[in-house]
Amino acid sequence: MSRPLLQLALDHTTLPAALQDAAVLQEYVDIVEAGTILCLSEGINAVKALRNLCPKKIIVADWKVADAGETLAEQAFRAGANWMTIICAAPLATVEKGHAVAQSCGGEIQMELFGNWTLEDARAWHRTGVRQAIYHRGRDAQASGQQWGEADLAKMKALSDIGLALSVTGGITPEDVALFKGIHVKAFIAGRSLAGAADPARAAAEFHAQIDAIWGGRDA
Amino acid sequence: MSRPLLQLALDHTTLPAALQDAAVLQEYVDIVEAGTILCLSEGINAVKALRNLCPKKIIVADWKVADAGETLAEQAFRAGANWMTIICAAPLATVEKGHAVAQSCGGEIQMELFGNWTLEDARAWHRTGVRQAIYHRGRDAQASGQQWGEADLAKMKALSDIGLALSVTGGITPEDVALFKGIHVKAFIAGRSLAGAADPARAAAEFHAQIDAIWGGRDA
Repeated sequence: MSRPLLQLALDHTTLPAALQDAAVLQEYVDIVEAGTILCLSEGINAVKALRNLCPKKIIVADWKVADAGETLAEQAFRAGANWMTIICAAPLATVEKGHAVAQSCGGEIQMELFGNWTLEDARAWHRTGVRQAIYHRGRDAQASGQQWGEADLAKMKALSDIGLALSVTGGITPEDVALFKGIHVKAFIAGRSLAGAADPARAAAEFHAQIDAIWGGRDA
Repeated sequence: MSRPLLQLALDHTTLPAALQDAAVLQEYVDIVEAGTILCLSEGINAVKALRNLCPKKIIVADWKVADAGETLAEQAFRAGANWMTIICAAPLATVEKGHAVAQSCGGEIQMELFGNWTLEDARAWHRTGVRQAIYHRGRDAQASGQQWGEADLAKMKALSDIGLALSVTGGITPEDVALFKGIHVKAFIAGRSLAGAADPARAAAEFHAQIDAIWGGRDA
């Protein structure tokens, strides 16, 4: 199982603010995400600008696509994204079309899990060729008190077993990392716990130290 | 039951192309929608520009919000949207927060139905105060051959009975309108069947004539 990556989520409402945080933090993370709020505020320029600013990083277009998988995947990958998210509620045809475009561009699709998805859905996504999913505590669910629990971890294990690598998000702190020891974690996604930290470099280092402690160092 | 409205969906990848169609068609429709593709391409400027171009029309921000309901609703309504869409997979907390902002702005939330939603979900949305939903044949599902059928109509009737007015979309033509006679239809949403028509004004007139034939004229 490969070592989980660290992903910076940028959910700013303006591009200059997002670029400022990306400029500071990109050297400490593996993946830079153009978040949904940023993309709905600034459009495709958000993805393009992050691609230009961070030429060596994996760029995620967190668009939570529900329909028009082909058109949106073409837009995202042409703008420089490596990965694009599709919401779990999307029809399978949307997943298939998005994945086909991703493949032709050397990119990947991540299924974003919210609400009523099933393991049967997950198997269907895997059959289309998709190999990643994102497991959430939503921002609003989190604010209303929902914690990581056994039920989450059991579902994540089942998804891992199907063959989906999981990115984990929703108020993740370095202390949370150990919870996910038995899971095939692709990335830990952090936004405000990195960009909002008094010392962002140190906050990132704490994430990496926790990841190293469980999955081994980068050179291991 | 009030007469269904006609909604123009703008799913262009550039704002100038969208504005050109909106300028031609706005006088023939009741609602102008900033579609997801357009919003991910052009950002919040898509909503603002349509608000400016169409001061008397209902403007929809079709953002299919899955999280961060408060922040995104503030963005959408501040930019001039009257209605904002939330995807059915969103946590209930997101629906509640989006609806609260909508109410404070005199706006409305529309729940966008894709994938595995339930009537229990629909009752929960209604309890939050939401009164609208959007029933789809997705673009990709439609392209893969999915037709309107009895199962769709039965689900739409059940949603109507819960108290949700439905906007209907997915390759709708004037000939389809009669199918929805027994449903509380808020709006028929058409994109390419209006903007792509050889004579868009005539295409819109055909929609209105079909709506009038079933629900009565605008002054009825």
